[in-house]
Amino acid sequence: MPLAEGGPAAAPPARALRWDGARLELLDQTRLPDREIWLTPAGAEEVAVAIERLAVRGAPNIGIAAAYGLAMEVTATPGLGTLEAAWERLRTSRPTAVNLGWAVDRVRAAALAAGPARMAAAAREQAQAIHAWEDEASALLCAAGAGLLRDLVPAREPVRVLTHCNTGALATGGTGSALGVIAELARHRAVEVLACETRPLLQGARLTAWELGRLGIPHALLVDGAAAGLIARGEVDAVIVGCDRVAANGDTANKVGTYAHALAAGAAGIPFLVAGPTSSIDPHIAHGDDIAIEERDAREVTHVAGSPTAPLGTQARNPAFDVTPARLITALVTERGVARPVEPRTVGALVPVAEPVA
Amino acid sequence: MPLAEGGPAAAPPARALRWDGARLELLDQTRLPDREIWLTPAGAEEVAVAIERLAVRGAPNIGIAAAYGLAMEVTATPGLGTLEAAWERLRTSRPTAVNLGWAVDRVRAAALAAGPARMAAAAREQAQAIHAWEDEASALLCAAGAGLLRDLVPAREPVRVLTHCNTGALATGGTGSALGVIAELARHRAVEVLACETRPLLQGARLTAWELGRLGIPHALLVDGAAAGLIARGEVDAVIVGCDRVAANGDTANKVGTYAHALAAGAAGIPFLVAGPTSSIDPHIAHGDDIAIEERDAREVTHVAGSPTAPLGTQARNPAFDVTPARLITALVTERGVARPVEPRTVGALVPVAEPVA
Repeated sequence: MPLAEGGPAAAPPARALRWDGARLELLDQTRLPDREIWLTPAGAEEVAVAIERLAVRGAPNIGIAAAYGLAMEVTATPGLGTLEAAWERLRTSRPTAVNLGWAVDRVRAAALAAGPARMAAAAREQAQAIHAWEDEASALLCAAGAGLLRDLVPAREPVRVLTHCNTGALATGGTGSALGVIAELARHRAVEVLACETRPLLQGARLTAWELGRLGIPHALLVDGAAAGLIARGEVDAVIVGCDRVAANGDTANKVGTYAHALAAGAAGIPFLVAGPTSSIDPHIAHGDDIAIEERDAREVTHVAGSPTAPLGTQARNPAFDVTPARLITALVTERGVARPVEPRTVGALVPVAEPVA
Repeated sequence: MPLAEGGPAAAPPARALRWDGARLELLDQTRLPDREIWLTPAGAEEVAVAIERLAVRGAPNIGIAAAYGLAMEVTATPGLGTLEAAWERLRTSRPTAVNLGWAVDRVRAAALAAGPARMAAAAREQAQAIHAWEDEASALLCAAGAGLLRDLVPAREPVRVLTHCNTGALATGGTGSALGVIAELARHRAVEVLACETRPLLQGARLTAWELGRLGIPHALLVDGAAAGLIARGEVDAVIVGCDRVAANGDTANKVGTYAHALAAGAAGIPFLVAGPTSSIDPHIAHGDDIAIEERDAREVTHVAGSPTAPLGTQARNPAFDVTPARLITALVTERGVARPVEPRTVGALVPVAEPVA
């Protein structure tokens, strides 16, 4: 199949956010791949807006950015009122990814435990700890996922892996979740990636193709609707995606379009893997049916890059996520190991103790 | 759910092509919904180009346009050489839809049977007969499909029907195939349509939304990847799509993205219907695996409306169709009746005798 040979020479993994001890910088992902513009949000409100408009995105990175936003806010204006208001604002900036609440809850708890005098320093330390934890989690899960793929996929080269949305260094700590696994696998076996464009916001076309080009990994883009047919025709060896919220039974909310790929993988008998840090697991939600699905602006559907695609006034449905039932997931790959089969027992064994990151 | 209330007052069904006895006019569907521009191709070559660049589209309409193109060519330059060259050019302008070969084979056979003196007149008459046949077929299959949907879908209103691509009057003779069935159903029951945008060329956004607005039928647009999740959540009562080529066993090639909807409908236990004239059935192809799938220009994937969505130089896969296996199709609706279940016996019973249309 025709594949990009990786574009320019491999570059270091992209970075989506930077922290210098006091100031947060966010790579504005709405402007990629055309421009690399860094935002410097002044506090929690500007971080929340960046999350809402997807300038920062990817469940783990949303959590990291929100943690820093909360720490910056209580550094600028220490006090319980500031802490609670900023915590509430950030926690509700997007509804589906669980990492967001996971992160800001930990910063808040650390700030409260430290007391008024140390509140700001404790919040900053906790945000940095979350960031470091996500970096380490990425490295661990990438190694676990690459090992699993090497076991699951027959010894053919190149390994043809299909993925959806963007789950690389732009989305998570470290080098990514699903895309990080692919990058790690590419260090051991020849890999070809089929990247779904991921309508409506085209994270696959804009971000995943950009990261794969930087990494020098051969890849081809496809429309989301083409994935199932290529899987059925035997052109895909495995599917791997990220996750925004995993229920206690393993049902997984991820970017809209994921569920159809899982159905096709199941029908074709190829592995369908979900990769994410355990911060994406929500032990308080029993089943996927209970996961709140964010419905975003109709304009994301009726327009592409600002231009209308449909007659003016056309209404739209725009769920940002869908839920893949656990029975269609071959394995859940985390930094704490692999759940396989994916069921309440195996997922529960991965759930970390609910306390601030050390 | 938020739905367009139909836009302007209901207008007559759109027409995609007109024939005045000597001249063919084609509505340039690449310019919709912004502009209604009619093309007047001079002969077979210009009709073939219009088919290749999708100015005329929809399996039945491709056949009608090609039939007129062949008739125009032998009218302008009568002779066996002209007939054979134009027949070959038109027949290969697109590979997947079977109606194209079905139509030009009939025009050629009629022209050959008539002999040199009557060749041009016979070709024109045959093309007009094919056009009239497709109009009548549409009316018959719309009535059959609407009746079947009324039986299959519990007596709830509105009936929520999901469709893919464009299968209305812009795509077929008469008022359409799948979208024609929906329009006929809407005369008897309240209907809400979920229209998939249909990447890469957005026929759902550009054409189906436009036709539904003209018809005054409430509708909402969605990205193709959102369909499976909405089906799983119980927000769809039935799926109905058209077809570009149906194999003898009922496996159906249709616009890329269709197969995933069929998988989701099967998993949710809702009806998945295929609607098309029997000119879309190819009795010479036993299984869907044997259907040639057109792979189109990568630029359709890497660009939207002329603007790049991916880094420059990104490669793409672009199959224009996929194949839905017969086991996932609840019923095949044609002008000659309904195949249900869809299997070689029931499909074979619908195949028309292979001779020129009377």
